[in-house]
Amino acid sequence: MRSDGRQNNELRPFSVQLHPNKYAEGSVLIEAGNTKVLCTASVEERVPPFLKNQGKGWVTAEYAMLPRATHQRNQREAAKGKLTGRTMEIQRLIGRALRSVVDLHALGERTITLDCDVLQADGGTRTTSITGAYIALALAIHKLSATVPFEKYPLTDYLGSISVGVIQNEPVVDLNYEEDSKAKVDMNVVMTGDGAFVEVQGTGEESPFSRAELDAMLSLAEEAILKLVKLQQETLGEAGARIGGGRP
Amino acid sequence: MRSDGRQNNELRPFSVQLHPNKYAEGSVLIEAGNTKVLCTASVEERVPPFLKNQGKGWVTAEYAMLPRATHQRNQREAAKGKLTGRTMEIQRLIGRALRSVVDLHALGERTITLDCDVLQADGGTRTTSITGAYIALALAIHKLSATVPFEKYPLTDYLGSISVGVIQNEPVVDLNYEEDSKAKVDMNVVMTGDGAFVEVQGTGEESPFSRAELDAMLSLAEEAILKLVKLQQETLGEAGARIGGGRP
Amino acid sequence: MRSDGRQNNELRPFSVQLHPNKYAEGSVLIEAGNTKVLCTASVEERVPPFLKNQGKGWVTAEYAMLPRATHQRNQREAAKGKLTGRTMEIQRLIGRALRSVVDLHALGERTITLDCDVLQADGGTRTTSITGAYIALALAIHKLSATVPFEKYPLTDYLGSISVGVIQNEPVVDLNYEEDSKAKVDMNVVMTGDGAFVEVQGTGEESPFSRAELDAMLSLAEEAILKLVKLQQETLGEAGARIGGGRP
Amino acid sequence: MRSDGRQNNELRPFSVQLHPNKYAEGSVLIEAGNTKVLCTASVEERVPPFLKNQGKGWVTAEYAMLPRATHQRNQREAAKGKLTGRTMEIQRLIGRALRSVVDLHALGERTITLDCDVLQADGGTRTTSITGAYIALALAIHKLSATVPFEKYPLTDYLGSISVGVIQNEPVVDLNYEEDSKAKVDMNVVMTGDGAFVEVQGTGEESPFSRAELDAMLSLAEEAILKLVKLQQETLGEAGARIGGGRP
Amino acid sequence: MRSDGRQNNELRPFSVQLHPNKYAEGSVLIEAGNTKVLCTASVEERVPPFLKNQGKGWVTAEYAMLPRATHQRNQREAAKGKLTGRTMEIQRLIGRALRSVVDLHALGERTITLDCDVLQADGGTRTTSITGAYIALALAIHKLSATVPFEKYPLTDYLGSISVGVIQNEPVVDLNYEEDSKAKVDMNVVMTGDGAFVEVQGTGEESPFSRAELDAMLSLAEEAILKLVKLQQETLGEAGARIGGGRP
Amino acid sequence: MRSDGRQNNELRPFSVQLHPNKYAEGSVLIEAGNTKVLCTASVEERVPPFLKNQGKGWVTAEYAMLPRATHQRNQREAAKGKLTGRTMEIQRLIGRALRSVVDLHALGERTITLDCDVLQADGGTRTTSITGAYIALALAIHKLSATVPFEKYPLTDYLGSISVGVIQNEPVVDLNYEEDSKAKVDMNVVMTGDGAFVEVQGTGEESPFSRAELDAMLSLAEEAILKLVKLQQETLGEAGARIGGGRP
Repeated sequence: MRSDGRQNNELRPFSVQLHPNKYAEGSVLIEAGNTKVLCTASVEERVPPFLKNQGKGWVTAEYAMLPRATHQRNQREAAKGKLTGRTMEIQRLIGRALRSVVDLHALGERTITLDCDVLQADGGTRTTSITGAYIALALAIHKLSATVPFEKYPLTDYLGSISVGVIQNEPVVDLNYEEDSKAKVDMNVVMTGDGAFVEVQGTGEESPFSRAELDAMLSLAEEAILKLVKLQQETLGEAGARIGGGRP
Repeated sequence: MRSDGRQNNELRPFSVQLHPNKYAEGSVLIEAGNTKVLCTASVEERVPPFLKNQGKGWVTAEYAMLPRATHQRNQREAAKGKLTGRTMEIQRLIGRALRSVVDLHALGERTITLDCDVLQADGGTRTTSITGAYIALALAIHKLSATVPFEKYPLTDYLGSISVGVIQNEPVVDLNYEEDSKAKVDMNVVMTGDGAFVEVQGTGEESPFSRAELDAMLSLAEEAILKLVKLQQETLGEAGARIGGGRP
Repeated sequence: MRSDGRQNNELRPFSVQLHPNKYAEGSVLIEAGNTKVLCTASVEERVPPFLKNQGKGWVTAEYAMLPRATHQRNQREAAKGKLTGRTMEIQRLIGRALRSVVDLHALGERTITLDCDVLQADGGTRTTSITGAYIALALAIHKLSATVPFEKYPLTDYLGSISVGVIQNEPVVDLNYEEDSKAKVDMNVVMTGDGAFVEVQGTGEESPFSRAELDAMLSLAEEAILKLVKLQQETLGEAGARIGGGRP
Repeated sequence: MRSDGRQNNELRPFSVQLHPNKYAEGSVLIEAGNTKVLCTASVEERVPPFLKNQGKGWVTAEYAMLPRATHQRNQREAAKGKLTGRTMEIQRLIGRALRSVVDLHALGERTITLDCDVLQADGGTRTTSITGAYIALALAIHKLSATVPFEKYPLTDYLGSISVGVIQNEPVVDLNYEEDSKAKVDMNVVMTGDGAFVEVQGTGEESPFSRAELDAMLSLAEEAILKLVKLQQETLGEAGARIGGGRP
Repeated sequence: MRSDGRQNNELRPFSVQLHPNKYAEGSVLIEAGNTKVLCTASVEERVPPFLKNQGKGWVTAEYAMLPRATHQRNQREAAKGKLTGRTMEIQRLIGRALRSVVDLHALGERTITLDCDVLQADGGTRTTSITGAYIALALAIHKLSATVPFEKYPLTDYLGSISVGVIQNEPVVDLNYEEDSKAKVDMNVVMTGDGAFVEVQGTGEESPFSRAELDAMLSLAEEAILKLVKLQQETLGEAGARIGGGRP
Repeated sequence: MRSDGRQNNELRPFSVQLHPNKYAEGSVLIEAGNTKVLCTASVEERVPPFLKNQGKGWVTAEYAMLPRATHQRNQREAAKGKLTGRTMEIQRLIGRALRSVVDLHALGERTITLDCDVLQADGGTRTTSITGAYIALALAIHKLSATVPFEKYPLTDYLGSISVGVIQNEPVVDLNYEEDSKAKVDMNVVMTGDGAFVEVQGTGEESPFSRAELDAMLSLAEEAILKLVKLQQETLGEAGARIGGGRP
């Protein structure tokens, strides 16, 4: 039995509030239990130097936690003067994951930056950021499509992410902070709406894991992400109509 | 007539949500029109090196804007690797202002850090941060008082802050971003519940201002801050009972 | 009675030495009592990126204290690898103040940088920097006018600055370091030759101040700055002839 | 058929030179085809601050590429003034992987730092670093055991790492740079001598991958890492006698 | 004939003003032609960490140029966020040179920091800094000796420095900026009052030099430094009485 | 008698391995006793901004030590976030020395960067870097000459470097680490194949040195560098045929 009474394959309550920010081209406040992440998508009509004049766009992400998102206050990275390795690793992951479902040529020479700011952290902040940032990205591209006549729609699929782990020999999904601290394996999975893997990152620093445990965790993740994709579809509604597909 | 139809001495709608963060010792989400600031107070049982063994505490503040708090996305200061002069100036101001109503000896050897993170900016972010951070601070000290038997209550008074300016020769209060851009003077005032000035910062870079204009702005600020202090008193209720005063 | 025997409205001895630097387009060594600041004005025929192709110029300032300008040696900011908040605040103030009396369109696409390096500090370094930098700026613009046929003269007025405060309930002007340490209010005022306010920055961190105290301090500052402007006029002589005014 | 004629499950030639550095407590030069990494283990009789007085030690890693390890010269990170996200990610991975086979309590209050410096890069630098750093670590612990009477030997198992990927729908092992550039999936696996997974990191940025592809890659990795562990055992010989086990 | 009419072995006019700074334990303003350097000596009753509890002191130096010390304004190193290689090289040289005539055990556990700030630069700033810093150091040690009963006087000798070079095949001494730019060799020499070499740094980047040229330059330097040491002796007068020697 | 039995004028065994790196335009692994430096030359078809459109090229150098090149592990400069003064000084020296034998106009608008990475350090790393980097540079220019029809060959001479010092009143050449620690003078000399001096840097921080000692050290250095130049000639063979000279 899990500390908050959930089944091993049961997600925490997820909720998504659209448009919490009035300036961003797309924005959501996503909550997974007590984890809360504000995701904004910002569109700029230019590309980074390494993509100049290639007829394609760019999607990138930045991630941060507010200093008191956690039990103890953490020093701001701006005050330290540099990003931690953890932050860099997470924002590289978010950007890479999102780009896997974007046709950068179809997007054209523009950059979309996804900012994922964790207001409160209770485990799963990187996977929740990916699931939320995807929606903000979809909103921004939908908004763009009102003025940019995309021949091919730049979003090729839905995309969700979840954490899985092994606690007391039981594979479980969507670990909260307390569970995360005692899990022997920590794994993050990103998957498309079609059920293909984009990222599989499993770490057994405290205790290596078997192939059977890996398989069980992957199955839990597949089941959970399909639920999250369904949530994304319902949330986006009409704004998601052209995802993965055809002409207007 | 102001662009949003307000009178010259009329504040935007202010709202305060208590305890938006479940970890912080005190927290509020304060909104002044479209300006939204999340303020958390974090208590730590230690003081900075320069105050070691002096029997007194410290109150300090940090301020940041989320990258897309504004019309255009701004680069993160953590990514730049340093704080801008504007940020430093603002967080020094917030800390100084709050300390003016804290008896640091009464607080004892502990540090309270106020984090003011602007989720959305529409003018007046520094003054709104002060007004909101004060409430978070009051909540944290009230919570502390449950376990620390303060002989003298560390909060000596209420504290509010507002911006004033001159637009088309009219002194006005609580400028939004659009007004701020066309004001010839930009002034921020911090005042205690008793009506004493803590900070007066007026700048006429675009156009110097007369003594009469200064006087008119100060009067507008006094009137407005008294309203904000009233709002603080109502919001804090019982949690503010010992402010400025006596024994439990 | 003040520690150095001055009246409450009495300035310390001010002296200005012109052209201490043989390379700068304008330079002065200004002394206010034991406070000594070397101010140089450097003209460059380019503008910062944000002003490109707008037909206007820029005036900016940098401020620093030599490590042993003070009683105790301070670490160099170059060795620390970053500017302190205090330095940023001061150099932003100096630049803003000077720009208030410069017509940037009349100046044309060039940048004038005022470097204020404090050789010795005994209170009032930021206000003395402003008063001295103004003269260096005026010298540089006068020199420029020999080769650039300004239709409108870029300097629109004189500009001076002074500190005021309250010590033992007495408002006093031009505080030295010792007075500064025991003043309950610390206020810096910048004013044009016409007597209009450019900056009013009053701080009562230790002890809030009343409207009456504010009024008394402002009056002292007005009186003092007019004296400083007179000193500037005498010092500049012919080099100031076109300030605020007409054609050659 | 692969570009260098290898079978899909065939490793490049691996060679290990012991003790290339006369100062380090353990050192190897490991080559995997044209990839060459110099790994040194440095033992220090102190632990980082977060481990003070806990009766346990620490193992950590740093990773760097010489500027001309690659086809084009890269700027030094020391000259840039900061580590890239890629470097941070890799050195965190190496350290985490090695710690999974070290009993930090058995090690006692000392730190072993593994420096992995890539002299020449032709794909697989992070996995080769792990495989090589393990040997340097084993040499250092073996050397330590001559003077420190370990009751329990701190190394609990062997540890190897390899990359796998999918090229033209074929799963292949140990990709060189040219293969890496055209692979649709890029996966790095770390495994113990016992065949348990320590890290599984698969990325399909260019093209998501199926569960079947994932399974095929994992099987290739398992087969390859067992070969590398065998190489480690032969290389270490007597110096590896107590790994995973008992008293002297 | 040199551009300013000097003989090849003729120094520019050197002048030294004592005590320009009222806080520093020792200070001089030294001028060599148009090169002006303000040197202050600051005494602190502590040593850097690497010298803790060794019964000896430390002498170190920092060097900087004001932004407009030169023909063109240079960006401040504090604004760049790091010291240039040139600055580091120079301040390491100054510190090393001064330490060669200080008995650090005799000095006791205290640090003397020499700050050399170039107010105006016309060639020879590093050598002039050494010659001036020596005097400031001597003043500070003399002042210390009033309260610290040195058994052995910490200053073991005088110390001067000069630049030499080869212009149009003629060896010349004390080059100004214009000469420096066209010299084929640039050499800086530091020597004790006893005529022993402390530093010899010659560079022929533009054009290598012969042993005969080296010999001629060294002879010019020896002659010049003895003149500078004489100037130091006259300037210090009574304050230099115990240098190199005995009991009070 | 020296600790390793060498004569005062005897070099340690020098060996040079050509082409240890398969990507660099020129590369050598040079060993002087236990000092081992990997030198690579990288050619880029562009020049730094300050040389744009001047029809000439640039030669520059970077120097680093691997963390465990020394008896004790040193922190990486990339991890510290900045280069030490020592590193800056050394890489400026290497670049300057190499440029003294390169005709930058003959080279044309391209940059050659010499990376000197010390794999193991036992004294003399900067001089060994210069001697080795010269060979890598010569290899790169020779390779360039196959495709670039140099009218004038860009390398004007050979170039070698060695350290000399005084130990127990005996001048000695090519000091190892142990000797370096007890030498009273430390001097590095760079000389061309023609026997002209490029750099002479002698330091007597611990103990000033006489003109006679300087002369003896210079003679030792001359003799030693001629041996090194001979080694360079033999090593380069045909690749050095056009150095200092004529048409193909």
